[in-house]
Amino acid sequence: MEIGSSSHEKVELFGRGWWWLKALAMQPAEKLKAMIVGVVQKIIEVGKDDPRRVIHSLKVGIALTLVSLIYYFRPLYDGFGAAGMWAVLTVVVVFEFTVGATLGKGLNRVFATLLAGALGVGAHQLASLCGHKGEPIILGLSTFLLAAASTFSRFFPRIKQRYDYGVVIFILTFSLVSVSGYRVDKIIELAHQRLSTIIIGGLTCVTVSIFICPVWAGEDLHHMVAQNMEKIACFLEGFGEEYFSRSPEDGDNPVIPKNQKPFLEAYKSVLNSKATEESLVNFARWEPGHGRFRFRHPWKHYLLIGTLNRQCAYLVEALNGCINSKIQAPSEFQNKIQKACTDMSLECGKALKELALAMTEMRQPYLADPLVESANNAASDLKATLKTAFLENSDLLAIMPGATVASLLVEIVHCTEKITESVHELANLAHFKKLDPTNTPEKPHLLHRGTIKPVSGDESPHVVIIIPDPPATMTDIANPTDHECVNKITNIQTTQETQNCIIIKS
Amino acid sequence: MEIGSSSHEKVELFGRGWWWLKALAMQPAEKLKAMIVGVVQKIIEVGKDDPRRVIHSLKVGIALTLVSLIYYFRPLYDGFGAAGMWAVLTVVVVFEFTVGATLGKGLNRVFATLLAGALGVGAHQLASLCGHKGEPIILGLSTFLLAAASTFSRFFPRIKQRYDYGVVIFILTFSLVSVSGYRVDKIIELAHQRLSTIIIGGLTCVTVSIFICPVWAGEDLHHMVAQNMEKIACFLEGFGEEYFSRSPEDGDNPVIPKNQKPFLEAYKSVLNSKATEESLVNFARWEPGHGRFRFRHPWKHYLLIGTLNRQCAYLVEALNGCINSKIQAPSEFQNKIQKACTDMSLECGKALKELALAMTEMRQPYLADPLVESANNAASDLKATLKTAFLENSDLLAIMPGATVASLLVEIVHCTEKITESVHELANLAHFKKLDPTNTPEKPHLLHRGTIKPVSGDESPHVVIIIPDPPATMTDIANPTDHECVNKITNIQTTQETQNCIIIKS
Repeated sequence: MEIGSSSHEKVELFGRGWWWLKALAMQPAEKLKAMIVGVVQKIIEVGKDDPRRVIHSLKVGIALTLVSLIYYFRPLYDGFGAAGMWAVLTVVVVFEFTVGATLGKGLNRVFATLLAGALGVGAHQLASLCGHKGEPIILGLSTFLLAAASTFSRFFPRIKQRYDYGVVIFILTFSLVSVSGYRVDKIIELAHQRLSTIIIGGLTCVTVSIFICPVWAGEDLHHMVAQNMEKIACFLEGFGEEYFSRSPEDGDNPVIPKNQKPFLEAYKSVLNSKATEESLVNFARWEPGHGRFRFRHPWKHYLLIGTLNRQCAYLVEALNGCINSKIQAPSEFQNKIQKACTDMSLECGKALKELALAMTEMRQPYLADPLVESANNAASDLKATLKTAFLENSDLLAIMPGATVASLLVEIVHCTEKITESVHELANLAHFKKLDPTNTPEKPHLLHRGTIKPVSGDESPHVVIIIPDPPATMTDIANPTDHECVNKITNIQTTQETQNCIIIKS
Repeated sequence: MEIGSSSHEKVELFGRGWWWLKALAMQPAEKLKAMIVGVVQKIIEVGKDDPRRVIHSLKVGIALTLVSLIYYFRPLYDGFGAAGMWAVLTVVVVFEFTVGATLGKGLNRVFATLLAGALGVGAHQLASLCGHKGEPIILGLSTFLLAAASTFSRFFPRIKQRYDYGVVIFILTFSLVSVSGYRVDKIIELAHQRLSTIIIGGLTCVTVSIFICPVWAGEDLHHMVAQNMEKIACFLEGFGEEYFSRSPEDGDNPVIPKNQKPFLEAYKSVLNSKATEESLVNFARWEPGHGRFRFRHPWKHYLLIGTLNRQCAYLVEALNGCINSKIQAPSEFQNKIQKACTDMSLECGKALKELALAMTEMRQPYLADPLVESANNAASDLKATLKTAFLENSDLLAIMPGATVASLLVEIVHCTEKITESVHELANLAHFKKLDPTNTPEKPHLLHRGTIKPVSGDESPHVVIIIPDPPATMTDIANPTDHECVNKITNIQTTQETQNCIIIKS
């Protein structure tokens, strides 16, 4: 339903609304039922997507009901009078989904009201010195100048980011105090009442926001950045099989339709994550220490990791174009590069997953290093393969798609390296916990993970994992974080080579 | 300066502020002067970036001063009483940079106030039936339920997009009316006063916003999408020379540092344009017809073009990585693909520029079609070159970077084709003006533009342009839109082959 601006449009809107109501009344009961079921399903969907939304809605209801108690209890009402309205207003406007946003808006509101109130009283005093005729002129002029200057300041990026709401409230309060001061004599009392009700409203919001199922912007940011990494990782882990399993004749008819493979689409949300990340960083900076995050957690560093994630996602987007491309390189060439490309993609995917996991668990991401190394080795392998490759039956045109995939993957390996570095940096800045082999609660940590090739023979490479102590049983060696490893260990025969090095035949 | 949340933080903040003031007072006059100059420079910079910002600030000042007249004129004040405050509040909160945002917020505010006011009065009536004890319970419960339900509705994307502010005002007004109704007896009068002052405030905003140098979100959106195309075009036009002029030994030491070539960086802003475009579309849909845009201009179609622009920008980002790459293909191979690659890039760039221009001038983008065709021809040339190419001295590894560039450019040609289609679609939907050769105001329009190759000889291809009528003078033939063409015509000897076909020797 559109609400237009011209009067014609409004008439049309009214007409449409009326038609809609009539149609609703004349609907057969079944259709009406179907409509209601549809709406209810949508509500359940939105709620299931993020159950914290339901809780947030209830929290707003609670905060508002608490504040309206001011009206119901006579002693409080007598103290504040009509200014109690400002508490209600504050709750409605200030209460946001995350604690950081609520705190930021609340503090902005309180400090801006304080500052603007003081200035407004000052302007009023100054104006009263100018006599009965000069007063409105001085007041009007000061309102005009302050409003214009403050509005202009909102265009400065740094003010826009953190103090935008404060500036709005500053203009609002200054205008109200200076202008209403022209009539209301008890201006100081008014300002005091208004400020204290705003503080009551703000405190109610902040208290409810923090103490009833808090939603921390910092935590959301932390998880979002880790999840974005994982989304890219999922694509990369699946890419090798997806790309090389298609014969050149498959063309654009993959066996399984793409919408049944969500891992090939999940990364797309990373491409446009910048705005959300930036606002979460701004909110997070208002938040006190919570959970595993200290007060001055290096939130700004997440922007750097986010940028690198997006760079990687841009490359993945180009790679995705290659899956969809109708032209596929001939199988002779594909076979040559398949091993190295699949390895690069897989190892990068694993490294990114490990980084995401390390972030989620807030531990040093050392385990990603050997995976990045493996990816680099695969890139070297590819280079070696290409250096010695010669073309038999196929021309340069035919191998172009394969060559593009290979070189995009090399770029992705570089990008993964950069992401690994930046997560290491974050881990140092934020003092993530170190992997301590002597302090393993139940299961020993995985210290190292990679592949080794047999010196002779055609066997495929073994997966090797190194753990600090020999485990009592086979399932003990699995780091619960490494699900794939768990599967391998339970399904595949293992040999224990040294006390703490386990080779799993792949 | 950060405003923290803990009390410790506030003390620190106060201490820091005091220190800052003291430092300011103790600054030598020169340093102080330098600081002020710095701030002034920044202000001038922000203002110069977009002079409409200065005008907007003044407009807010004007609207606010107008509304505060309610307080100064006794007859008006007597009519509205303290409710005049709501007019001031409305102006401060509703006045936004663009007309669309202001209108959207204003209409949301008025309709939400109306609806919530009516519901609030209803709730109050219902509660009063329940006796003295039941009244606060019924009112509290209805406030809680409505606030929770409305807050939840804000999570629905469609409501979030267009009616978010309306829902906030709905909760606000309902709480205020139903709760304050418990005390204030003249509830209908209160609601009426509040609504009329809000309408006065909203009308003031909308009037000032529309009639004093209006900033239309639709126009901004239109220009932004066109500009984004042009940014990509600038990169593509410059890419060929930039990439192929470097010898393989140049490595990462290009002759001119990259920051002196802004055309290589401009496209980066396109990558993250999604959020801005979406909000501009939402604002634009509130706007009445303005300038060359009708009321129901197909604003949503801009989202499609924007998405395609971004897809193209992702490919350009990958291409940019190739410029920066240390490894360059050997010159033997580079020479083979240089012509076709440069042509693809250049023609795509020209096509996108023409599309951007056609959008800006709101005319059918026919002139882009031959350019896209040229780009497609260049892609075919490349394929033909590669099909017959064989490698003499270089291995596959060495040619990889070149092959990647070539295949990315082929993708960019496809993408440009899609963008051209979508701009054609927009031109049809929005009834852009057709190129009318009989109605040429001063200079004849360019009807067709492309290159032709001489049948024999080693001459490079000629640029050919076709105009409806033979021009009187040479400068007359130039469509003022085609700057490059103007340069060519004034600098280079031209021959007139037929009455309306002009060939410019390149």
